[in-house]
Amino acid sequence: MIGCPLPHVEDDRVLLGHGAGGRLSAELLDTLVLPALTPGSTTATGPLEDAAVLPGDDGLVLTTDGFVVSPLFFPGGDIGALAVHGTVNDLAMRGAQPLALTVALVVEEGLRLSELGAVLASLGAAARDAGVPVVAGDTKVVNRGQADKLFITTTGVGRRVAGLSPSAAHARPGDAVLLSGPIGAHGTAVLSVRENLGFVSDVVSDTRPLHRLVRELAPLGADVHALRDPTRGGLAASLNEIARDSRVQVEIDERVLPVPAPVAAACDLLGLDPLHVANEGCLVAFVGRDSAARALRLMRSLPEGAHAVRIGEVTEGPPGRVVLRTLVGARRIVDLPLGEQLPRIC
Amino acid sequence: MIGCPLPHVEDDRVLLGHGAGGRLSAELLDTLVLPALTPGSTTATGPLEDAAVLPGDDGLVLTTDGFVVSPLFFPGGDIGALAVHGTVNDLAMRGAQPLALTVALVVEEGLRLSELGAVLASLGAAARDAGVPVVAGDTKVVNRGQADKLFITTTGVGRRVAGLSPSAAHARPGDAVLLSGPIGAHGTAVLSVRENLGFVSDVVSDTRPLHRLVRELAPLGADVHALRDPTRGGLAASLNEIARDSRVQVEIDERVLPVPAPVAAACDLLGLDPLHVANEGCLVAFVGRDSAARALRLMRSLPEGAHAVRIGEVTEGPPGRVVLRTLVGARRIVDLPLGEQLPRIC
Ligand SMILES: Nc1ncnc2c1ncn2[C@@H]1O[C@H](COP(=O)(O)OP(=O)(O)OP(=O)(O)O)[C@@H](O)[C@H]1O
Ligand SMILES: Nc1ncnc2c1ncn2[C@@H]1O[C@H](COP(=O)(O)OP(=O)(O)OP(=O)(O)O)[C@@H](O)[C@H]1O
Ligand SMILES: [Mg+2]
Ligand SMILES: [Mg+2]
Ligand SMILES: [Mg+2]
Ligand SMILES: [Mg+2]
Ligand SMILES: [Mg+2]
Ligand SMILES: [Mg+2]
Repeated sequence: MIGCPLPHVEDDRVLLGHGAGGRLSAELLDTLVLPALTPGSTTATGPLEDAAVLPGDDGLVLTTDGFVVSPLFFPGGDIGALAVHGTVNDLAMRGAQPLALTVALVVEEGLRLSELGAVLASLGAAARDAGVPVVAGDTKVVNRGQADKLFITTTGVGRRVAGLSPSAAHARPGDAVLLSGPIGAHGTAVLSVRENLGFVSDVVSDTRPLHRLVRELAPLGADVHALRDPTRGGLAASLNEIARDSRVQVEIDERVLPVPAPVAAACDLLGLDPLHVANEGCLVAFVGRDSAARALRLMRSLPEGAHAVRIGEVTEGPPGRVVLRTLVGARRIVDLPLGEQLPRIC
Repeated sequence: MIGCPLPHVEDDRVLLGHGAGGRLSAELLDTLVLPALTPGSTTATGPLEDAAVLPGDDGLVLTTDGFVVSPLFFPGGDIGALAVHGTVNDLAMRGAQPLALTVALVVEEGLRLSELGAVLASLGAAARDAGVPVVAGDTKVVNRGQADKLFITTTGVGRRVAGLSPSAAHARPGDAVLLSGPIGAHGTAVLSVRENLGFVSDVVSDTRPLHRLVRELAPLGADVHALRDPTRGGLAASLNEIARDSRVQVEIDERVLPVPAPVAAACDLLGLDPLHVANEGCLVAFVGRDSAARALRLMRSLPEGAHAVRIGEVTEGPPGRVVLRTLVGARRIVDLPLGEQLPRIC
């Protein structure tokens, strides 16, 4: 569980890890992407949120994600449903309900139309289930060997639930840290099919929409400080990002961390830390201490929050630090994963 | 110039032409994509517009496009600037000024960071020039050989200029058909570098934002019936789409069609019809007859409309038909291109 030293990176080329949601991703964003898009602001450009508030209208939020998961179909889901859930969830993390989606396809020449059709049927069903229309799209085809079957980019516009305005920068000392459900399933499920680990076939992705869970929290209003969906980089990345952007220390307790036994077994085998594995159907919530019990009750009233637990709190300590109280009572620092091990799981 | 018969297509696989904006694209959308996303509406789902009106707010419009152009840099532009202009222009075609953009990158492992940086610098500069902030994004990396360097999907939200509500379904008999500038440059420029046609190096892409040109038309209000940017599929596709969605016949005049000499020469050589070649910096406008002269004057007041011309009108005749009056006075039907010849030009 100790972070590996940074490998000697061939530093003038893009590495797989630059897309994995860990330290390399953060570095690419900070040193190359954001300076190019907003030059002048060489330092931090403010918190990097799941979704952005629309300029001139703080009731509307906007988010985008590309999906490149391989294989296209995996236990518990497929790239089409994932592309809807991922974007609906990033809207939800800013307290919003989805209003409209767009879908841009990059298709590799030679993909079976039946396979494309199956993905789109799943995408359409997921959108209807989430109650959001696909209002626009785009379809490009590239030559054989110039894409891997299908990439989907979904963008979502959402409207904030009145009273909710969570932000990665709003966690406060004393906050309770809540988790809506068990971690590690999505990444493990995808890797297990890719690595042909038949015996972990009981792990299925948790891909699901979370906007109803967030809507359920509306009565707590401004007491919902921060929400994040721990996708690439896992729970470790989400907690580090909130700790950084809110300038607080976060402590979580290994004894209460919900890691299902088959996930733990698969992680052992794959050499992964469940804290680093992507999820697509749970959220972490930072809420005022006095609202914690009520928040848990509200979450548990829905199936997607049935196993919600309190995993820690915001404590006094160096800002930006995440600490894990281990099973044996030790304390270790939870770093951002480097991000090399888990390419193309979402 | 006579449409080829449909080749015997291997009909269970995606073909390059399915992404080229012509007949195959329309067929894929109608038979597979749209039925999956909106089942039940087996027939037409309404006009397929450049950008969609946001549900519950007809002042806001939303559009998305994937950009997969190869090479990344071409005469007159690059994929970064193109990704901004293409999306700004689709918003403009619904009468909107851009409010916010999102940028999703799919990067191939091994791409030079300097090349990625150059594209993003160009993208950032194009966004600033258009006056629109990039508010959110996403960055994924796929293994070597699983993408071709870089694909960019941009999504835009725009606010409509008061009084403008153009639609592909609003062209009316008697309308004048105006074109804001010469056609054929973008696709020819990209193909000429790809095919190593050094001697057509004087053709540069027309990639540029058109929202100011559209804003200039605001005084005409509801007399601006339909706007479209003739990208993939070229002017032929745009006119066919408007003729179909407005159920009118469109006639244009070859004598006044502005095709620059180097573009015409390159098209000859490449076996292309300039009417089928993609543009990224001009628009076609259908305006009420009595507003035509004023619309031309307004367009010509800006550099991007300096060469605006009237190319035809909406006439009595079979709905959905586009007719070209040729140089020798004959009339020929302008079909949708099949769409096989021009892959990956945008
Ligand atoms: N995968 C898709 N899902 C949903 N709608 C789609 C999809 N692909 C295309 N569309 C819709 O079909 C219509 C035509 O799309 P198209 O991409 O040809 O338009 P455009 O963006 O104006 O042209 P270009 O992509 O050449 O710039 C649009 O209304 C678009 O929203
Ligand atoms: N290419 C980019 N351009 C602009 N902003 C970007 C880009 N890539 C990422 N960002 C921004 O960086 C932040 C982190 O992005 P990231 O994709 O990690 O978040 P996420 O979508 O919540 O996670 P995931 O993609 O794993 O679902 C977001 O605020 C996002 O808008
Ligand atoms: Mg997120
Ligand atoms: Mg996301
Ligand atoms: Mg498009
Ligand atoms: Mg368009
Ligand atoms: Mg477009
Ligand atoms: Mg993302």
